[in-house]
Amino acid sequence: MSGGMDSCVTAAIAAREHQIAALHASYGQRTETRELRCFHALADYFKAAARLIVRLDYFAEIGGSSLTDMRMPVGDANLKNPNIPNTYVPFRNAHFLSIATSWAEAIGASRIIVGAVWEDSSGYSDCRPEYYDVFNNLIRVGTRPETNVTVETPLIRLKKRDIVKRGMELQAPFHLTWSCYRETDAACGVCDSCALRLKAFQEAGVDDPIAYQTRPEYAQVSN
Amino acid sequence: MSGGMDSCVTAAIAAREHQIAALHASYGQRTETRELRCFHALADYFKAAARLIVRLDYFAEIGGSSLTDMRMPVGDANLKNPNIPNTYVPFRNAHFLSIATSWAEAIGASRIIVGAVWEDSSGYSDCRPEYYDVFNNLIRVGTRPETNVTVETPLIRLKKRDIVKRGMELQAPFHLTWSCYRETDAACGVCDSCALRLKAFQEAGVDDPIAYQTRPEYAQVSN
Repeated sequence: MSGGMDSCVTAAIAAREHQIAALHASYGQRTETRELRCFHALADYFKAAARLIVRLDYFAEIGGSSLTDMRMPVGDANLKNPNIPNTYVPFRNAHFLSIATSWAEAIGASRIIVGAVWEDSSGYSDCRPEYYDVFNNLIRVGTRPETNVTVETPLIRLKKRDIVKRGMELQAPFHLTWSCYRETDAACGVCDSCALRLKAFQEAGVDDPIAYQTRPEYAQVSN
Repeated sequence: MSGGMDSCVTAAIAAREHQIAALHASYGQRTETRELRCFHALADYFKAAARLIVRLDYFAEIGGSSLTDMRMPVGDANLKNPNIPNTYVPFRNAHFLSIATSWAEAIGASRIIVGAVWEDSSGYSDCRPEYYDVFNNLIRVGTRPETNVTVETPLIRLKKRDIVKRGMELQAPFHLTWSCYRETDAACGVCDSCALRLKAFQEAGVDDPIAYQTRPEYAQVSN
């Protein structure tokens, strides 16, 4: 649970049916203190029965991403560019899923519920549906024979605007979330993550309750 | 590269054909200081071009293993017991492989060479050959399209005694290695890892050059 809009709606979906154990990772990403604050606020809101916060400091050492390498600037969004943005952290989600699997196996949790979004997102390879199919295979062959844990991605094929709508139906606390890749007080409004979020709220016709430095119009006008 | 006999022989195999970047993890295992010392000695010996040492402190918090939970004793070896010993760390190797993949993608390495051993070992699920096949699938779907990284496990189907023999052929520096799960000065000789190692050296007819508190006879007498 990063503390972003997708993990917030995912938690709202999970909390309807399950008791939640909430996992968060700080990996030297630029906005980690703000994300951690949102994580705790969401874990409180959803009455998490357990929480695990892990530090993955080695990501900064590994580098290769503008999210964790302070010498690389986070570019402004270009939602029409088909390439993977430089915010891509190499193979990041495998780390989160591995930790979740180890924790699930240790505490006897049966489901790992993740807010990955594929088509309508930044195009990171480790957000695509096939990736989660393969990860479920990995859990099957790589855990104790009696362990039964599966990864679920309830949002993965949704458009971002439909995630906002789903969150509104579930009364998800969007005011407690954070998505900006750059800033920690008022969101920049122009990085890839802000752009995807603002566009989603605009297309859903919902006012995004967090503070922005600027709110460009991203929603496509259908002529 | 843990610093044990299998990772030593694996490094010897890798170093014949490749420039090596060496990865080590400290995850709160009982013998982590000794393992780290062996890692550096082996990385020096094999002239590693780069080394990355990661701390995975969350394993102690996750628990579920006698290797990382100081309240659980490490049992004596019972090599005839078909169950997985309590030294199993839930889903551990996925963490190591994920870090190796991220690092490989960042530095442009093409192969991840791992000393996993299946049949003739402790029976951990994440040491079986199918597991590495699935992990290779995960890398294919979960990295940048242009990334080309594969995991190789040159020892996985070998008997431990044949790993010793292979190491002797390659002049692998066994004197720089450590395998004991319990001790950091002289190996205990009776934990699962010591038992597998001593049996391997005895069956290979080779003197294990490290110090032991006791050296039980594990090699099976063929009548």
